[in-house]
Amino acid sequence: MAAVNTTGNKALIPFSSRLREGRALAEDVWSIFNAANLPADCLNLGQGYMNFPPPSWVRQAAEEALARTDTNHYSHPKGRLRLRNAIRDFYGPSFNREVDPDTEILVTSGANEGQYSVFTAFLEQGDEVILFEPFFDQYLPSVTFNGGVPVYVPLHPPKTDAHKSTSGDWTIDLDELRRAITSRTKMIIVNTPHNPVGKVFTRAELEGIAALAQEFNLLVMSDEVYDILTFEDKEHVRIATLPGMWDRTVTVQSAGKAFAATGWRVGWLIGPESIIRPTLAATTRIVFCSNSPLQEAVAQGLEQVKEKQFFETQRAEYEERRDILISAFEKLGVKYTVPDGSYFALMDVSTIDIPDDYAFPQSVLGRGRDFRACWFIALEVGVSTIPVSEFYCEEHASIGESYARFAFCKDVDTLKRAGERLQALKKYVKA
Amino acid sequence: MAAVNTTGNKALIPFSSRLREGRALAEDVWSIFNAANLPADCLNLGQGYMNFPPPSWVRQAAEEALARTDTNHYSHPKGRLRLRNAIRDFYGPSFNREVDPDTEILVTSGANEGQYSVFTAFLEQGDEVILFEPFFDQYLPSVTFNGGVPVYVPLHPPKTDAHKSTSGDWTIDLDELRRAITSRTKMIIVNTPHNPVGKVFTRAELEGIAALAQEFNLLVMSDEVYDILTFEDKEHVRIATLPGMWDRTVTVQSAGKAFAATGWRVGWLIGPESIIRPTLAATTRIVFCSNSPLQEAVAQGLEQVKEKQFFETQRAEYEERRDILISAFEKLGVKYTVPDGSYFALMDVSTIDIPDDYAFPQSVLGRGRDFRACWFIALEVGVSTIPVSEFYCEEHASIGESYARFAFCKDVDTLKRAGERLQALKKYVKA
Ligand SMILES: Cc1ncc(COP(=O)(O)O)c(C=O)c1O
Ligand SMILES: Cc1ncc(COP(=O)(O)O)c(C=O)c1O
Repeated sequence: MAAVNTTGNKALIPFSSRLREGRALAEDVWSIFNAANLPADCLNLGQGYMNFPPPSWVRQAAEEALARTDTNHYSHPKGRLRLRNAIRDFYGPSFNREVDPDTEILVTSGANEGQYSVFTAFLEQGDEVILFEPFFDQYLPSVTFNGGVPVYVPLHPPKTDAHKSTSGDWTIDLDELRRAITSRTKMIIVNTPHNPVGKVFTRAELEGIAALAQEFNLLVMSDEVYDILTFEDKEHVRIATLPGMWDRTVTVQSAGKAFAATGWRVGWLIGPESIIRPTLAATTRIVFCSNSPLQEAVAQGLEQVKEKQFFETQRAEYEERRDILISAFEKLGVKYTVPDGSYFALMDVSTIDIPDDYAFPQSVLGRGRDFRACWFIALEVGVSTIPVSEFYCEEHASIGESYARFAFCKDVDTLKRAGERLQALKKYVKA
Repeated sequence: MAAVNTTGNKALIPFSSRLREGRALAEDVWSIFNAANLPADCLNLGQGYMNFPPPSWVRQAAEEALARTDTNHYSHPKGRLRLRNAIRDFYGPSFNREVDPDTEILVTSGANEGQYSVFTAFLEQGDEVILFEPFFDQYLPSVTFNGGVPVYVPLHPPKTDAHKSTSGDWTIDLDELRRAITSRTKMIIVNTPHNPVGKVFTRAELEGIAALAQEFNLLVMSDEVYDILTFEDKEHVRIATLPGMWDRTVTVQSAGKAFAATGWRVGWLIGPESIIRPTLAATTRIVFCSNSPLQEAVAQGLEQVKEKQFFETQRAEYEERRDILISAFEKLGVKYTVPDGSYFALMDVSTIDIPDDYAFPQSVLGRGRDFRACWFIALEVGVSTIPVSEFYCEEHASIGESYARFAFCKDVDTLKRAGERLQALKKYVKA
């Protein structure tokens, strides 16, 4: 049991064996491609946060909350009632039901902590959790920390030679999903719109997943934090609304994504009492409650979005941002995927010739080719992105090696400049 | 494995067995003594949050953070650098060392989530954690959720017949502590100033604990969230500063307590890299990071406390609040404990005659006598408090049954009115 910690000293007190799994202590992609390691003038299309603040009227609501007393103190662990009511009013109809704010909504400290709490509440040591690859990287350690065992089912990349694909060309194979299910499978994680592919799962795909979830009595965690970002009127289907699925589905949302406020750490879960109640018990112990002033501000935000047509406007803004980036890919002549949702777009970096003798740091050399490609692009043209193999298990990492993820949650000017800078890669693009 | 959930329906998906331990699904004391269940005009001296807002200059700093961009988005999981630097500058000297903000400070989503993350980072299934009773009730499920086994060592109540004791009269027995240690003991939790007793552990007591921690190679979690609240110049000793203890101690602090901002959910841990690094890996997965605007505000708060002499003023204010409450106890003629620190005071309710035929709700009837006493006081005179047996394990609950915890983090007017109301209990006080 004597453990040597990663700084090389013998640790007095050995840390838990759970940290030895799920890449928990590895240098993660966010640290490697951190702004601090890159040229100062690099345009950051890496991490998925905005370079603009939340809407002023939502920040105004936060200021009002700061001026009061109760909104500066502990909230109920379920979340502030005003916020739960606002969530019911705004999102309830999209679930085709009266959602009960007392038993079917749980406010969490970001979507992230909400998802962690579901794992804490439901996973038994050795329970298997199915993830579609590529996956939001936090899932993996969050599952293993709670005793779960991740099981991977890939999204298959576009089977076309065309340089332009859409995220819909990334497909799941339902037979493959069925084969991944064992007697220990407890949960399937669905993420739509998808990070990093931008795929919006079709009704047929979700029906296929739903049928298997019912056949094998599985819990479905549906991560829909980007549901406010689908383009060209692409239909976003909630798996919770399919027949028989409400009782086994917990839907995850995030004010960070909805209101350009990733640092506010307010998210929530919607689902049946049988899922929300155990998860409440978990989140109550983990964080007690989410922060109060920003919860109150998000409540006011949701109360006003309809009248202000905020989500419609925001959607159009993101579509413009997406299109600036996509046309830069097009002009450059690389292969790429046009996302139907989310604020991420994939560029195929396999046709970019990386000079063999380029000076790569050690952290990048040990990883997939995409790590070198992203490093090269960042240093050579000053646009930072994220290598996609990080979002695959080791066994399947080679699928991800062809892609770099670009985040377009950035203002138009930044995206235009990035698009121009990318053209300097032209001489490296293989014919 | 088929589980029936607590609402009586057969749950489709059974929740994790970890929720069956640590009272995780029980109706907790906070729900029973929630304002919603009590008379509307009840003065709330129950839950430990203030009925006044954080200082205006700290709220002003939060407003400034809301106006910027980066302070509305994800922070580094370690916490914002400005806050870590402010913590180093303000608290570093009290640790008698240069604390490194990069490796020895970790900002968390309240002290609560920080403590949870330490358990996640260090507990192995079956590891024992020693708690002094009474204990902050969140420790118990936080330990069991992470596979730990709580082991209880009581603080012994004052052995005096005098009606007035001090929190220093509550004592630990170091032999008892030694006997509680087994080959599976991993950690001791110390809480000074103590919730709910108000005890400020003496140097000699902490030296005794430290010697055992070193003899048996134990990690010490020192919960010092009330370190800014000690009275009459009572010395607050950090166990981390005792010889040989830095390397095995993690100290827990909370901006919620320091700045009357319990709903901001900003806390932090200070300790050696060997403890902070694994805990960072845990907190990164659990919440990713704490909320950014309020972190930034707390940074500005800490930068200014010295010049504003804020903690000195606040300490004097709390001493006045304590004294108002204490003199009401004195006038009433009950036994009580004068706290040396924290914002809690214990009243001995064993000498209050509770009418046998009083109409108690079911939630209170199944519990210790103190639950009935607190209910009776709330309904009869309109002052709500918390029964202390909740802070003991079942085996030792009878020790706690004699006490009600009063929180005096309330304005002077509220405390005066509560003190007056309490006098109506006079006719129930046994001679
Ligand atoms: C798919 C997905 N789920 C969850 C999250 C976490 O959201 P939050 O910031 O609300 O914790 C993210 C953030 O990037 C995400 O991309
Ligand atoms: C002893 C003790 N530790 C920790 C906490 C949690 O502090 P925070 O609100 O920062 O999570 C409390 C809150 O009441 C407490 O009393």
